[in-house]
Amino acid sequence: MISEFYQFYLAAMNDFSEQIAALSPSEAMNSEQRSQPTRENQIKAEKISTEQRILQYFKPEEIQRGTFTQPDISLDALAQQFKRSELPTYPITVDDYYRQLFQEVLPYAIDTGSPTYIGHMTSALPDFLHDMSKLISKLNQNLVKIETSKSLLFLEREAIAMLHRLVYNFSEEFYTENIQQKNRNLGIVTTGGTTANISALLCARNAGLLSKENSTELLKESLYKVLSKKGYEDMVIIGSRLMHYSLNKAASILGLGTDNIIFVDNNSEGKLNCKQLEEKIQECQENRLFILALIGIAGTTETGQIDPLWKLGEIAEKYNIHFHVDGSWGVPTIFSDKHKGKLKGIEKADSVTICGHKQLYLPQGISICLFKDPQLLNYAATTARYQAQQDTYDLGRFTIEGSRSALSLCLHGALHIIGKKGYEMLIEQGIYQAQYFARKIDKLKSFELILEPTLNIVNYRYIPDYLRDKLRKKMLTNAEIERLNQINQEIQQEQFEQGKTFVSKTILFDPKYSKKIIVFRTVLSNPNTTATDLDNVLEDQLRIVDKIQRTKGG
Amino acid sequence: MISEFYQFYLAAMNDFSEQIAALSPSEAMNSEQRSQPTRENQIKAEKISTEQRILQYFKPEEIQRGTFTQPDISLDALAQQFKRSELPTYPITVDDYYRQLFQEVLPYAIDTGSPTYIGHMTSALPDFLHDMSKLISKLNQNLVKIETSKSLLFLEREAIAMLHRLVYNFSEEFYTENIQQKNRNLGIVTTGGTTANISALLCARNAGLLSKENSTELLKESLYKVLSKKGYEDMVIIGSRLMHYSLNKAASILGLGTDNIIFVDNNSEGKLNCKQLEEKIQECQENRLFILALIGIAGTTETGQIDPLWKLGEIAEKYNIHFHVDGSWGVPTIFSDKHKGKLKGIEKADSVTICGHKQLYLPQGISICLFKDPQLLNYAATTARYQAQQDTYDLGRFTIEGSRSALSLCLHGALHIIGKKGYEMLIEQGIYQAQYFARKIDKLKSFELILEPTLNIVNYRYIPDYLRDKLRKKMLTNAEIERLNQINQEIQQEQFEQGKTFVSKTILFDPKYSKKIIVFRTVLSNPNTTATDLDNVLEDQLRIVDKIQRTKGG
Repeated sequence: MISEFYQFYLAAMNDFSEQIAALSPSEAMNSEQRSQPTRENQIKAEKISTEQRILQYFKPEEIQRGTFTQPDISLDALAQQFKRSELPTYPITVDDYYRQLFQEVLPYAIDTGSPTYIGHMTSALPDFLHDMSKLISKLNQNLVKIETSKSLLFLEREAIAMLHRLVYNFSEEFYTENIQQKNRNLGIVTTGGTTANISALLCARNAGLLSKENSTELLKESLYKVLSKKGYEDMVIIGSRLMHYSLNKAASILGLGTDNIIFVDNNSEGKLNCKQLEEKIQECQENRLFILALIGIAGTTETGQIDPLWKLGEIAEKYNIHFHVDGSWGVPTIFSDKHKGKLKGIEKADSVTICGHKQLYLPQGISICLFKDPQLLNYAATTARYQAQQDTYDLGRFTIEGSRSALSLCLHGALHIIGKKGYEMLIEQGIYQAQYFARKIDKLKSFELILEPTLNIVNYRYIPDYLRDKLRKKMLTNAEIERLNQINQEIQQEQFEQGKTFVSKTILFDPKYSKKIIVFRTVLSNPNTTATDLDNVLEDQLRIVDKIQRTKGG
Repeated sequence: MISEFYQFYLAAMNDFSEQIAALSPSEAMNSEQRSQPTRENQIKAEKISTEQRILQYFKPEEIQRGTFTQPDISLDALAQQFKRSELPTYPITVDDYYRQLFQEVLPYAIDTGSPTYIGHMTSALPDFLHDMSKLISKLNQNLVKIETSKSLLFLEREAIAMLHRLVYNFSEEFYTENIQQKNRNLGIVTTGGTTANISALLCARNAGLLSKENSTELLKESLYKVLSKKGYEDMVIIGSRLMHYSLNKAASILGLGTDNIIFVDNNSEGKLNCKQLEEKIQECQENRLFILALIGIAGTTETGQIDPLWKLGEIAEKYNIHFHVDGSWGVPTIFSDKHKGKLKGIEKADSVTICGHKQLYLPQGISICLFKDPQLLNYAATTARYQAQQDTYDLGRFTIEGSRSALSLCLHGALHIIGKKGYEMLIEQGIYQAQYFARKIDKLKSFELILEPTLNIVNYRYIPDYLRDKLRKKMLTNAEIERLNQINQEIQQEQFEQGKTFVSKTILFDPKYSKKIIVFRTVLSNPNTTATDLDNVLEDQLRIVDKIQRTKGG
């Protein structure tokens, strides 16, 4: 499967004959060469065996092709099936519960591993994690403190250190000193990207406002008073217009209004406009606004684009602002030697969010916030009498979450069982899929590719026959733009309801018309997805267009 | 086992001959009576079969008695075993990973299900949940939105409704109308009690400051400006001195300083002083402080005490303040007909936090925040373009967390497979254990019971021979109080390191001396714990005292 997309990529690029050879099993397995193993052949063989092994984890059973959910009921009608509010007095048996579950509930769940369910960031998982999830449940450790987790807490810190090193690549000595040091944290495990982002902003807020000497004193007062004592009028965060809405949540929780989030526009090449950014920073400083953080995005949720992190890092340094990179989606790109250059400058970030349940292929509920400075998190610590005590190994004083499972065992396990090379293969595979899909969309006249994919997210939309010419000539009327939005929304909704193939939808800003446009959004991260699957998604959409037109016609 | 503690309880109370009969299997199983089933006998039989079945879930394999962790290495030395920061380049096999895990890691984890590990709120789980955890991992649903979870999202809302009904007991019509209604939420599932508490405070903050008409307008500005526009000087929360530290975290995140948390003292009976509470509320209002919420605790983490919820509710109503009950530990007491009276008034709460991974016996990572008014959460909603869209079933706009697993399947499952009667049995069992343990401590001269347990948490401390008299006469010097703290801390630490039995420690305020005292804290929620286990915990502590004295002597 790797080779399918890779070969397509090569054919398209017409320029990678060496790599194609390296990827061909027949060559590496050539017995003559094997009898005289060279380092080069050894690496080839290792690469192939890595790929085969990793892909095997994603194919525990026969892959279901057909439907990703039982389609024979509308959402509203399905909702009506779940309206019992009375608790059963006497227990029912486990078997009876499962019988109900398998009959009434699970057919109407989503097969997120389906190769044609490519609309969201929730996809196939390697099967070894399921037994690990069971083990975690059995162990029932609580990572809030050492007395309820012990070795699993140290294991978690080891996994965090591996990710820290991947991003920041400090010296061996640095890691030896900090990895298990009390009151030092290379990062924390959170239950999701939103709490990771909140943790980062909390550190940024406290570190920016409190100096070490008077921090305890100032923490007695409410933030408003601290801000005013420091001579600030208000507090803002500043960053890319494509920031994830979790940053809106974070801002709201921290007491910022929507006007306190300052968005910087993209320039004509679709990259964050750094000149505008500097102007806005200067304006904030003139107006005595405390800039809590500058946010860069590494892999936006909607398009997969990456902000110019190096430049942002330089600007943050220049103005002494906390630089946070929300890399919930994109950080694992760093595993790929071919693509990691796209993240250049991430090592300048004071904090970085990574979601384990996204491109680390872990079960839901694990993200990581890394901190460049292992002492930064001390600004956001809370202690208690019976736990999270100072100068202990307890983690609860540093995390927003209190009780927390040992889900980091899955992270630690996957980092070893998939390894750098395994993740590299998965990441590159997704990007090849995206490149294939983009070319395919480009070729079909019925669709418009919205922008060239940076990573593995592809945005496009359906364009009816009669509007294609006008679109090309940039002569669409407002009513026609609206009509396009409407039909694309209808297609997406009908496609979800039919349950065969799936893309999501989002709203992007079209600078050509200064209008919001509704587009399809596909996330290509399932290694089981084939070119035929991708073709089928598009064919399915065209069938739906036909159906919609027939319905309207008749 | 039930009968062991229950019979002790009965013997101690000398007054429950009827219930003893109801609990005796021999009577209920009497064949003559069975041949003529009466409703009464049927209930008895159901109760016994419920107990037997539920206890079976907690005994999947032979219970390990001996050690709850491998003791042959100090924490600091163990930490040194986990210092690899370099990611493996090539993957290792699943078998190799498990081999390492079982050899090097798991022996040094905590057997939280051990019947003599009674120090924390993390205890034994029913075994049927482990397969469910595996299923959840396999399903890989994401509850952030309907397109990634579908039926599992409706199932979660059903489970929430069952808990809502248990606490608020509104009409069948109310539930039919609200249970699956878009933009209405009887509650939300969060990943823990802290985020549940933050969610509640966020709603309270927004609902208190924004009126429906101008909410959008005001949300544009930072909270400081809104407060000042509304004529407030500052913002506070007010509540019991025994509030969980997650409320400190919540306050800090929301921008409150430690001085903005107003603690109300307990009166001489150890109950929250309601007169003082009203005085403090009036003082806040005179000083134009916005009271974000009044917090009542149902089962404090340190002692299990319950605030006078009914009175707090009345006061909150009188002054029009959001009333939040942190019932992370104590809410499941409501399952017990015998003890639910202790929670009287909880139905007055505007929001209630319950931790599933505590007394609902679920795996780590699931709590619930209930809302009396199903529209309250709309004050804290965030929307996004590609998900969490308005007027959909999507939950991500209401929760602090974004991506979230279908762990609520365990909640739904357990509510059915354990049932009201099963939970009642588990709750009552823990309280009987606590009563037994308290009497046992009282009887042994070496220990002091700090206060009569309200629920299943018991606090006590060791008192050396030569101080017992002085303690009784309330004539301890400051140095002696300090000495007591020191020895109790040493015992607890040594006990953890030896790994045989475990209690935790906490710091309580001793009004007799106006001093902070270090005490043991036991949480009795493991149905496998026997009276002998509890006796062994105390014996183990006396052995440790001997050892400490010998070491010091020699």
